Amino acid sequence: MIELIQDGSVTSASGFLAGGTYAGLKTQEEGVLDLGILVSERTAALAATFSTNRILSPSVTVSRQRLANGSARGVVANSGCANCSVGTQGRTDAEEMALLAAGHVGVSAEEMLVASTGMIGVELPMALIRQHIGNIELSADGGERFARSIMTTDSRPKSMAISLDIDDRKVTLGGAAKGVGMIHPNMATMLCFISTDAAVEQGFLQSALSEAVDLSFNMIDVDGDQSTNDTVVVLANGAAGGPAIERGSDSAAAFQEALTYICIALAKDLVRDGEGAQRLIEVVVSGAKTVGDSRKAAREIASSLLVKAAVHGRDPNWGRIMMALGKSGIDLDESKIDLFINDIQIVHEGLAIPFFKDAVISGMGGTDVKFGIELNIGEATATAWGCDLTEEYVTFNSAYST
Amino acid sequence: MIELIQDGSVTSASGFLAGGTYAGLKTQEEGVLDLGILVSERTAALAATFSTNRILSPSVTVSRQRLANGSARGVVANSGCANCSVGTQGRTDAEEMALLAAGHVGVSAEEMLVASTGMIGVELPMALIRQHIGNIELSADGGERFARSIMTTDSRPKSMAISLDIDDRKVTLGGAAKGVGMIHPNMATMLCFISTDAAVEQGFLQSALSEAVDLSFNMIDVDGDQSTNDTVVVLANGAAGGPAIERGSDSAAAFQEALTYICIALAKDLVRDGEGAQRLIEVVVSGAKTVGDSRKAAREIASSLLVKAAVHGRDPNWGRIMMALGKSGIDLDESKIDLFINDIQIVHEGLAIPFFKDAVISGMGGTDVKFGIELNIGEATATAWGCDLTEEYVTFNSAYST
Repeated sequence: MIELIQDGSVTSASGFLAGGTYAGLKTQEEGVLDLGILVSERTAALAATFSTNRILSPSVTVSRQRLANGSARGVVANSGCANCSVGTQGRTDAEEMALLAAGHVGVSAEEMLVASTGMIGVELPMALIRQHIGNIELSADGGERFARSIMTTDSRPKSMAISLDIDDRKVTLGGAAKGVGMIHPNMATMLCFISTDAAVEQGFLQSALSEAVDLSFNMIDVDGDQSTNDTVVVLANGAAGGPAIERGSDSAAAFQEALTYICIALAKDLVRDGEGAQRLIEVVVSGAKTVGDSRKAAREIASSLLVKAAVHGRDPNWGRIMMALGKSGIDLDESKIDLFINDIQIVHEGLAIPFFKDAVISGMGGTDVKFGIELNIGEATATAWGCDLTEEYVTFNSAYST
Repeated sequence: MIELIQDGSVTSASGFLAGGTYAGLKTQEEGVLDLGILVSERTAALAATFSTNRILSPSVTVSRQRLANGSARGVVANSGCANCSVGTQGRTDAEEMALLAAGHVGVSAEEMLVASTGMIGVELPMALIRQHIGNIELSADGGERFARSIMTTDSRPKSMAISLDIDDRKVTLGGAAKGVGMIHPNMATMLCFISTDAAVEQGFLQSALSEAVDLSFNMIDVDGDQSTNDTVVVLANGAAGGPAIERGSDSAAAFQEALTYICIALAKDLVRDGEGAQRLIEVVVSGAKTVGDSRKAAREIASSLLVKAAVHGRDPNWGRIMMALGKSGIDLDESKIDLFINDIQIVHEGLAIPFFKDAVISGMGGTDVKFGIELNIGEATATAWGCDLTEEYVTFNSAYST
């Protein structure tokens, strides 16, 4: 059974330390954290997934290279600057950032991953990083400061931790994530770091992460754009003891469930904090012919601007859901489609049925709006999440760099 | 040489009549046109392209069937109701609308196409159509009224006509189009009707239209959504005389150029009138390895919400253009990319170069903003158009049906 840990964070799992410092990368305002380190006291099995954007930050390139080692000690992350589109200097800076962090922590540079988020096209102010990185105090209480140090336009840090028993041993998973713009299916999070004291075989850890990311970060949408810096990292240090969890075992199933759980919770938290967002939209497409179809349709609906704007206006304009569903290009039979808004049926076999409109509008006033689309031609189901599109999103993104 | 006809419309070409009437489909306000007919005095070669959405209006289905005839006399179109997601009744109504229009015009129902635009999920008020369709006065001056009758959220009708000499004969092409929401690459226009008095062989007419649509309506974006009702129809009645233009001739090249010209002009006009739009964004991607790559990249940039919001705020945030370019997944070499905003170079070989920011911001204050992306790895070029994303778009689309 998965239990939520009150005020949990990326340092809730045994053997993890973290911290963050002001380095002046994000703002001149002293005290605003923008440089953080997460480290395991012992070598941890490493798995990660990265952005598929063809323009990548060298911070991603460096971390992706580390992945080949199969293990790592930690990650250094900064906000305020994406270290992207800056030529060969970006690689040099990412390598130096790993080296500086490794020196501070007392490990080798090869054991540290790097992550950056913020403005594209600006070089990392390395002088500030050199000056301030030594101020990071690493502690078992530092998870919250680490989560704060990776924030950009996030209105709040995203931290959580869960625990469960695997083979009669208590195992903990913690996570820190940040959004919030440029979030779209296909590696949606800008940055997410997961720590666990479970002992996990590296090959299984990577496939478990890929599956969890497919069901969580790859199913969320804020604005259809995809970052050059997206990174999800999981470190499993085995401090909880026991043999390494391997593919196919009961323990593996339990671990997979927990990893997926924390990924979905963090992904939904990112969407909820989407730029200007006021409502979380959950789209469940069921009865599809294939899982691919249900995933595609759910994501298409969750990312339709007209659907997002309708949710913002509490407008039960179900024609837009049909339009987005049709646009997805999946197999469907219009005369078999049932459609529900917050579990109230709106459409039966492709046709509108009488519904109490005021009740539906009133239900759409909550912080969560759920669309259910039953295709009735198969067994496959998928869930995607998006947020409403608000005037604030536009105002905010019209004046980001200037 | 292509010449623009002052106050030209869909009836500027010889042998075309059109008109529109109030039928009470769009609003109760008398005088607001919402039902129109365009008709050729003689049988015309017919070509058309339609939405690829999996949910289609029966009005589209009926028109698509007519396409097999290869010729037609005209089209009846209504605004206010999309005649979509209404079950089998939609088909019955579309057929009846064609029959009513054919009766009014004096042709057979098989010779009339049907087009509808407006709310999804509501049945066509056939009683009103039966009552008012007889009021449509067809005349050679009726092009403007026809263009008005197909408007939904358009702020103004989109009409134009051009003329050119083909084989020493003056040939005219006229067009009427309407947008404005749900516009996206892949059959972007909701409705566009083109008339020409040129004599054109039907097979060539269809391929000429497909090519013109590929370079125009398939390269524009307002909000990434795609309608269930998109229709582009061209009728070539041969009233200008001469032998039918056939593929491969010099006349064919001239006709192709003219058809592409009018399609691009109408497509840009649709984008310029996008919901809430204040600026037209033109994205030219050159130096790509393949035409497919340049098209994909240009469309990805023109439809990126973050790019659109930046244009709205006159923010030369070129990192977002790099992000959207990378997201397109095309072949590129970051270190070879040059980037221009309104012809002012911002990026050279993948790196920002010093530019006079105030001058760029000032240039972005016009009604047209041009992004040039030179990939320098090939010869292929493509152009896409989008509009900026404004608070008005959100406000408008939050309260469409309610």
